[in-house]
Amino acid sequence: MILLDGAKVANDRNLELKAKIEKDVEKYHRAPSLSIILVGENPASQSYVKGKGKACKLVGITHTLYHLEDTVSEAELEALIDKLNHDDDVDGILLQLPIPKHLDDIKLIDMILKEKDADGFHVVNQGNLYQKRPTIYPATPKGIMTLLKTYEIPIQGAHAVVIGRSNIVGFPVARLLMDQGATITVCHTKTKDLAFHTKQADIIIASAGRPELLTKDMIKPGAVVVDVGVNRVDGKLVGDVNFAGVSEVASYLSPVPRGVGPMTINALMENTYELYLKHVSR
Amino acid sequence: MILLDGAKVANDRNLELKAKIEKDVEKYHRAPSLSIILVGENPASQSYVKGKGKACKLVGITHTLYHLEDTVSEAELEALIDKLNHDDDVDGILLQLPIPKHLDDIKLIDMILKEKDADGFHVVNQGNLYQKRPTIYPATPKGIMTLLKTYEIPIQGAHAVVIGRSNIVGFPVARLLMDQGATITVCHTKTKDLAFHTKQADIIIASAGRPELLTKDMIKPGAVVVDVGVNRVDGKLVGDVNFAGVSEVASYLSPVPRGVGPMTINALMENTYELYLKHVSR
Repeated sequence: MILLDGAKVANDRNLELKAKIEKDVEKYHRAPSLSIILVGENPASQSYVKGKGKACKLVGITHTLYHLEDTVSEAELEALIDKLNHDDDVDGILLQLPIPKHLDDIKLIDMILKEKDADGFHVVNQGNLYQKRPTIYPATPKGIMTLLKTYEIPIQGAHAVVIGRSNIVGFPVARLLMDQGATITVCHTKTKDLAFHTKQADIIIASAGRPELLTKDMIKPGAVVVDVGVNRVDGKLVGDVNFAGVSEVASYLSPVPRGVGPMTINALMENTYELYLKHVSR
Repeated sequence: MILLDGAKVANDRNLELKAKIEKDVEKYHRAPSLSIILVGENPASQSYVKGKGKACKLVGITHTLYHLEDTVSEAELEALIDKLNHDDDVDGILLQLPIPKHLDDIKLIDMILKEKDADGFHVVNQGNLYQKRPTIYPATPKGIMTLLKTYEIPIQGAHAVVIGRSNIVGFPVARLLMDQGATITVCHTKTKDLAFHTKQADIIIASAGRPELLTKDMIKPGAVVVDVGVNRVDGKLVGDVNFAGVSEVASYLSPVPRGVGPMTINALMENTYELYLKHVSR
């Protein structure tokens, strides 16, 4: 079994990006900049935001964290987004999800200028994705595709089975796999016999959010398995894949942690850089 | 085998719609109105447009056909769309596809006000669909879902196999089926063994655009088969399904013609009515 070493791939790509940004700073006289909005004290969100900030520092992206209390009003958040939209020094804006229930996440994300939408969640960027037009892709699906490409996993003609139908991972990654020629199956909580489907897969994307859901007996020997799970069990990070068992049967397998997580952060860095390049040339 | 009688269902629904519109005309003092833009002399397009106009007359939607020569410039088309966008008497606008290659269909469709986008092809309406937000659905997927619902076909937990990955039929109908709880598989030209997948399906949506591609030996006994094919072979309309053979094995089957075609037109009528209701209450 070959490890899909997301930590290594992401680090290599971040270093390449750092070199590009150094050159661009000379040319455009400022670094790319990302504004991160964090609402409340969700520990997982705080940990993600910390990781994103660290990556920004590494690659040379200026970042500003707006950490707001969970009692913030929608009007205050709107005012902040509006300010950042109009700030010519801001290239990317990211609203860390989830946000407290009294706030309308869909409305707030669509308020972010689509030209500054670092997460690719704006309705127009989503529409573009599903019409196969050039756009900013959501970070996790983009990171997964980059990981598969780096390891030269054949996608055209493969049967890819995605577990999980979320708008931020499962469904968009199924679409990107299909666009590269995979036959796709999307399984989810209403799927009657999950193993029946996963056993057929050449590529499995496990993004169900259920600890060690995918076991050895559920996969075809030689399958490529990407684990997107980030489950905290007794304070430990656990993926959607039973690593020990599946590693005996899979041809390629991504670990948790150090698999898709770093790739997601790298994709966010690359998105911000892309937005910056378009911004400075406007 | 029970026939999925799209012609009958569409006619019933059109008559219901007609009754609603009669009441609304009294209330709002004008009928819903649809502007159809047709470019060039494509016989299939002309036939579709004729069918749409006929349905408008039946249900009481005022329609205006703008039939332009295939040498029309993009600027002229843009001017027409702009005029219709600003015309307060116009509720829905439809650009009949395909249009000649010198015209940018994506740009022109996105120029149509999303509030007048009768086909549900505008990038924002597409983005809404793929984020499961209320929106105007593309007519063919909407018509297929209505047909399945009318015949009370169970969707939750079913395995639906869609043949064809187009942005106007295959992929959006897969999404709508998934949103109602189906496990979905999308097959296409790069799929290695189509029959392997179709044989597993509880529901098959055949939208490949290949005459009689789906044969009796490719389906599971009792499967529900929806034929979206509109192929002209020797001047005759032929679906993607070999009707004679498949009808021996399927539990439900839609014919071509008089299956999905009328349902698509009914969906367009319902879309236009929906846009009208929102328009008059703005």
